[in-house]
Amino acid sequence: MQRMTEKKTLGRLPREAIRMLEIPRLPQDLVEQFKALVDLTGTLSDAMDELGIVGVIPAYVLPPVTNGTRIVGPALTLRNIQRTAQIHKAAQEKTNTQGESEAHNLAEPGDVLVIEGIMGCSNMGGQSATIARRQGFIGAVVDATLRDPEQYRSMGWPVWCRGFTPITGKWRMQTVEVNGKVQICGVQVSPGDLVCADEAGVCFVPHQQAEAVLRVAQKIDAGDTKRKKDIDSGVAVADLMKKNYKS
Amino acid sequence: MQRMTEKKTLGRLPREAIRMLEIPRLPQDLVEQFKALVDLTGTLSDAMDELGIVGVIPAYVLPPVTNGTRIVGPALTLRNIQRTAQIHKAAQEKTNTQGESEAHNLAEPGDVLVIEGIMGCSNMGGQSATIARRQGFIGAVVDATLRDPEQYRSMGWPVWCRGFTPITGKWRMQTVEVNGKVQICGVQVSPGDLVCADEAGVCFVPHQQAEAVLRVAQKIDAGDTKRKKDIDSGVAVADLMKKNYKS
Amino acid sequence: MQRMTEKKTLGRLPREAIRMLEIPRLPQDLVEQFKALVDLTGTLSDAMDELGIVGVIPAYVLPPVTNGTRIVGPALTLRNIQRTAQIHKAAQEKTNTQGESEAHNLAEPGDVLVIEGIMGCSNMGGQSATIARRQGFIGAVVDATLRDPEQYRSMGWPVWCRGFTPITGKWRMQTVEVNGKVQICGVQVSPGDLVCADEAGVCFVPHQQAEAVLRVAQKIDAGDTKRKKDIDSGVAVADLMKKNYKS
Amino acid sequence: MQRMTEKKTLGRLPREAIRMLEIPRLPQDLVEQFKALVDLTGTLSDAMDELGIVGVIPAYVLPPVTNGTRIVGPALTLRNIQRTAQIHKAAQEKTNTQGESEAHNLAEPGDVLVIEGIMGCSNMGGQSATIARRQGFIGAVVDATLRDPEQYRSMGWPVWCRGFTPITGKWRMQTVEVNGKVQICGVQVSPGDLVCADEAGVCFVPHQQAEAVLRVAQKIDAGDTKRKKDIDSGVAVADLMKKNYKS
Amino acid sequence: MQRMTEKKTLGRLPREAIRMLEIPRLPQDLVEQFKALVDLTGTLSDAMDELGIVGVIPAYVLPPVTNGTRIVGPALTLRNIQRTAQIHKAAQEKTNTQGESEAHNLAEPGDVLVIEGIMGCSNMGGQSATIARRQGFIGAVVDATLRDPEQYRSMGWPVWCRGFTPITGKWRMQTVEVNGKVQICGVQVSPGDLVCADEAGVCFVPHQQAEAVLRVAQKIDAGDTKRKKDIDSGVAVADLMKKNYKS
Amino acid sequence: MQRMTEKKTLGRLPREAIRMLEIPRLPQDLVEQFKALVDLTGTLSDAMDELGIVGVIPAYVLPPVTNGTRIVGPALTLRNIQRTAQIHKAAQEKTNTQGESEAHNLAEPGDVLVIEGIMGCSNMGGQSATIARRQGFIGAVVDATLRDPEQYRSMGWPVWCRGFTPITGKWRMQTVEVNGKVQICGVQVSPGDLVCADEAGVCFVPHQQAEAVLRVAQKIDAGDTKRKKDIDSGVAVADLMKKNYKS
Repeated sequence: MQRMTEKKTLGRLPREAIRMLEIPRLPQDLVEQFKALVDLTGTLSDAMDELGIVGVIPAYVLPPVTNGTRIVGPALTLRNIQRTAQIHKAAQEKTNTQGESEAHNLAEPGDVLVIEGIMGCSNMGGQSATIARRQGFIGAVVDATLRDPEQYRSMGWPVWCRGFTPITGKWRMQTVEVNGKVQICGVQVSPGDLVCADEAGVCFVPHQQAEAVLRVAQKIDAGDTKRKKDIDSGVAVADLMKKNYKS
Repeated sequence: MQRMTEKKTLGRLPREAIRMLEIPRLPQDLVEQFKALVDLTGTLSDAMDELGIVGVIPAYVLPPVTNGTRIVGPALTLRNIQRTAQIHKAAQEKTNTQGESEAHNLAEPGDVLVIEGIMGCSNMGGQSATIARRQGFIGAVVDATLRDPEQYRSMGWPVWCRGFTPITGKWRMQTVEVNGKVQICGVQVSPGDLVCADEAGVCFVPHQQAEAVLRVAQKIDAGDTKRKKDIDSGVAVADLMKKNYKS
Repeated sequence: MQRMTEKKTLGRLPREAIRMLEIPRLPQDLVEQFKALVDLTGTLSDAMDELGIVGVIPAYVLPPVTNGTRIVGPALTLRNIQRTAQIHKAAQEKTNTQGESEAHNLAEPGDVLVIEGIMGCSNMGGQSATIARRQGFIGAVVDATLRDPEQYRSMGWPVWCRGFTPITGKWRMQTVEVNGKVQICGVQVSPGDLVCADEAGVCFVPHQQAEAVLRVAQKIDAGDTKRKKDIDSGVAVADLMKKNYKS
Repeated sequence: MQRMTEKKTLGRLPREAIRMLEIPRLPQDLVEQFKALVDLTGTLSDAMDELGIVGVIPAYVLPPVTNGTRIVGPALTLRNIQRTAQIHKAAQEKTNTQGESEAHNLAEPGDVLVIEGIMGCSNMGGQSATIARRQGFIGAVVDATLRDPEQYRSMGWPVWCRGFTPITGKWRMQTVEVNGKVQICGVQVSPGDLVCADEAGVCFVPHQQAEAVLRVAQKIDAGDTKRKKDIDSGVAVADLMKKNYKS
Repeated sequence: MQRMTEKKTLGRLPREAIRMLEIPRLPQDLVEQFKALVDLTGTLSDAMDELGIVGVIPAYVLPPVTNGTRIVGPALTLRNIQRTAQIHKAAQEKTNTQGESEAHNLAEPGDVLVIEGIMGCSNMGGQSATIARRQGFIGAVVDATLRDPEQYRSMGWPVWCRGFTPITGKWRMQTVEVNGKVQICGVQVSPGDLVCADEAGVCFVPHQQAEAVLRVAQKIDAGDTKRKKDIDSGVAVADLMKKNYKS
Repeated sequence: MQRMTEKKTLGRLPREAIRMLEIPRLPQDLVEQFKALVDLTGTLSDAMDELGIVGVIPAYVLPPVTNGTRIVGPALTLRNIQRTAQIHKAAQEKTNTQGESEAHNLAEPGDVLVIEGIMGCSNMGGQSATIARRQGFIGAVVDATLRDPEQYRSMGWPVWCRGFTPITGKWRMQTVEVNGKVQICGVQVSPGDLVCADEAGVCFVPHQQAEAVLRVAQKIDAGDTKRKKDIDSGVAVADLMKKNYKS
């Protein structure tokens, strides 16, 4: 988090719309321990239940574009809302108020782009996604729709979103905040929260509680592995029930 | 907008969560001309169509608590999102993160409280509403649920909302911003935008375009009145169609 | 159904968009017998179940604007769909494609206006409703939204619809057919079908089967009245169950 | 709960479908203390949050038929599901599988009828409601639709439901259980749980925890009353925030 | 259905929550004839229409986890509802009320597990699914969400469900009944009903009517095969229409 | 569009239900230019925004059955609505009112079948699809459900629809119009409009405006290609923003 010089914004958004130039980032070895969990989101969800934290979105609500991918990294956030100009008027005046390039500009390798957006139109097109990946984002979690599905699939860049559309966001949405608190499918996310996503869903682990969540998750992970071994070796249902694998 | 001394916040929210201490307010005589429109939201909606502005919510989406009320005043905005603590944990620790009192504290007589909130729990209880009215708010537009329906009805204080609930918001929501841009039923609202609401719905007139919208609305209003008179006096359908009442 | 001269259209829609100038209408004494049913829609729904006819919409799906009203009359139908011009473009070019005036023009006293429309904008404003009533329509059933709620309520003109909005339909919808087959909340309606509506919902009785439906309904009505008398006089639950009131 | 002779069923349902002939009922003086709470469902919802109990349904999800009514009484439960015969076939064969009369038959004065039903058709008609009231039920909470709205309104019998319909349930639903565990709008209810409902919503207080919930609720009630007095007497926002009314 | 000794429950649920220890099972050769139908669910749906039976769920409502699988077997049913303890409280007290192991314990080879569950959390995790398969279940139909999608896919065990989630059901749901009547996506299912599922959807054939349904289905199947041959050999549209393939 | 002899209908529908025997078709070289667009629906959606035309449906609303297919061809339209006979009655009487064979009968090679249908049952089965393809349709866009998913997939015939079901439409729907104006997912489509569909969604280009839309689309297409090249060659975010690729 220590840098020589402060980052500069692109000037695409008013300066005050960018809440932080740097997000809090966890030490890399902690991030690696999260990655080492066997069942990433299932175990974290269990750990967060134990600690009383709300932060999980099921895959049936926010599915991955491609099965079999998983990511772990800090959230860099963006909020888009509907604009006040009607579409055709905006298209005629060519006033593009979509601003995810400001997020791309602040990305560090390993960050995850998290967008609270609007449904129906694109909150990030294929070209923008190419830039996002080039800037270091390891994936994106988008509570909204995107454009250019073939490109997303061919890139192999992990993305969770609400679906695809051919309709541009340029004349329909306005980016109002970068690195503020956002709400993704009803879950609060702050910049720097650890995004952990796989085929089952997305967990947002609050930055301050990341280490505590990890410790509980590791204990659960060990118990699950033992139980799985017992099941595979044919232990009877009644016997499985009697054992306590969680401690 | 000129005041001797700057307002103070209550310290309930971090200072940076309060985007403006004063909202832009239109001259009172302009507000009065809006109030004088015969069909308030219908005429404004037509005027905003002509000018290419998006800003209207139908009553079937966001109904008034009581029929027959109408309000005109500048928006003072509040944004609530789900919190990260689970309900019972928050209730045990008694950490209340609901902060509409910061909005009440900034209100001037004639302002309208506009809340982007969360469904299911209360974004403003009856006691809070009593304070809101006392502080000068002439009504509220809430994209979310409220508590204490009997009190709202008995107060006769005009409110548009998504319904009522007995469930407290204290342990469920977090107020994250006062006087930032919000999204109400999919419509962008900035602090200071003119809220015009009646039984048919809610219009948010952008502050900068208020005068332009009013001029168009007044022209439409005059035409409608003429047409209504013709209908009442029995002019034939075919003849009504031929006349141009809009210019 | 016999008239001296054929009706003329207003020329607002292409001639082929108007499928019939005259709808089939039942003899008035049959209509009066429908009106005489004690529980209008409940009894008709039961009769249509017996005859295997689909044609009932619950009030929770399509509520009356005012409780306590009921209507019986033949359907004159209208179909509105979204237009291809974007709103602001249409508003600039002032190309109004809303055409319920063609329906008003064909109305006979006692008819019911039935509109398959689109949600969000108005499919018939207050002024248009005033004309509709003047032309003879005894009420309207609208699978869509309307404008000017206060006027609808003050008129006391019976209407079933999906809610109110301030937003005009002029630049948003296109009337594509008058007196064709329409679908109202998933139920097929042909011009001339008997519309019977009350606080519990709306029944569309197919024109050809109206007499058969009425005969069954009258039998059910008589049984219900007997059963109600027994309940009011305190007959025990077990005894009520043993009696057959339907034959 | 002590009775001389066991109740008899009507034989309308198989005997094993009726899980209990008598539901557990709380002492009347405890019920009276619940009734004495100033804000019935709001205070109970707060108390249940403190004790970690799930059991509240907002009024916007399950509204009262009439505003201004409130009830407190033990739940006598009924579960209806879709039947396997198609409608017209069932109507032809006259095989009525609707069985709320078995519930009516078991009612004691002061009980509340709680129905998990199916949408679209009637889970209890007006005549059945008349019998329900006669048998002692003080009201009903129905997660489904009902028939005969005018009769419900004219009876003044408190009911919470999902809306009205003219369509009979006789050929569409099957009553499969009386006095089993049901789920009402996603909330578990056991026979004997205390139903407390008003204009804001419905609380189901688990029978075993009723006294504990009441004690917490009474403490909250007292604090709220004090705070309300302070607000009415004009105490400043900043001062209201500093006081602790909950202990 | 004849067994030497009665099955024993695991004691995880109260004994009365388990409605049957043995479900009715059809003779194996009848099951094989169902399996031999070319278009499994399409033909059965047609046969059930002819006989007036409701029992089909489209795949767009309840999709298979993997395309290309099909199963035929008797339903062993389970019902889960939301519990009354709040999540964090239940997690702290470690009171797990999820009970599908009682169903696993009663399974015979060839049975199908049918779960009426709750959305959002897991009604059967991957380890539980491994046990279910080991106990003889040939697949599952779950009106709710599941956990561990990768494991389900890698097992190749046929499942129809509403989607995946990382969130445990342990602290959120309560199993209240095994082998009672359940409702799956609005369709009634009794233990022993024949579950027939493929890529197009799921049919529940009532146990008592299985043979009658099969006979009609076989006749339709034969006609469809003939018609398909005619289409493939190029018979003209007008000629195809004239032929009667159903008798 | 010039033909020697007029087409004949099959007599399955009343003659007046078929609005046009021939649809307007664009010159083949124009169709080829549409096909040559790199990003088919994305570019057309942008062009239609510039010209103020509404006509695009996102893939998350109406997904393709198979990814990676794309079609361009004129719309031949069909409208299905619910019928008035109850299912079992219709099945008993064997009165099939499904009429897409009339559309098949009018098809020319290169046409696209566009169906406004009803949800739940099949609007075109696998056998009907085989005939549709044989008659020249290059694909179908269906705002409703279909039957026989395996056959659709194995045919490799491009289809966009709302999902699959085993339930027949024969007894549930009535085809009421061929080659009239329809509404597909809220978008107006006239016979002859150019259907352009790919993995991102479906665009309906109005016949009269097809050439104008194409010219704008080609300009946008060229700019996008240039921008894509710049991104791939590593041009900085700030520099990309400064360039105007659209003129």
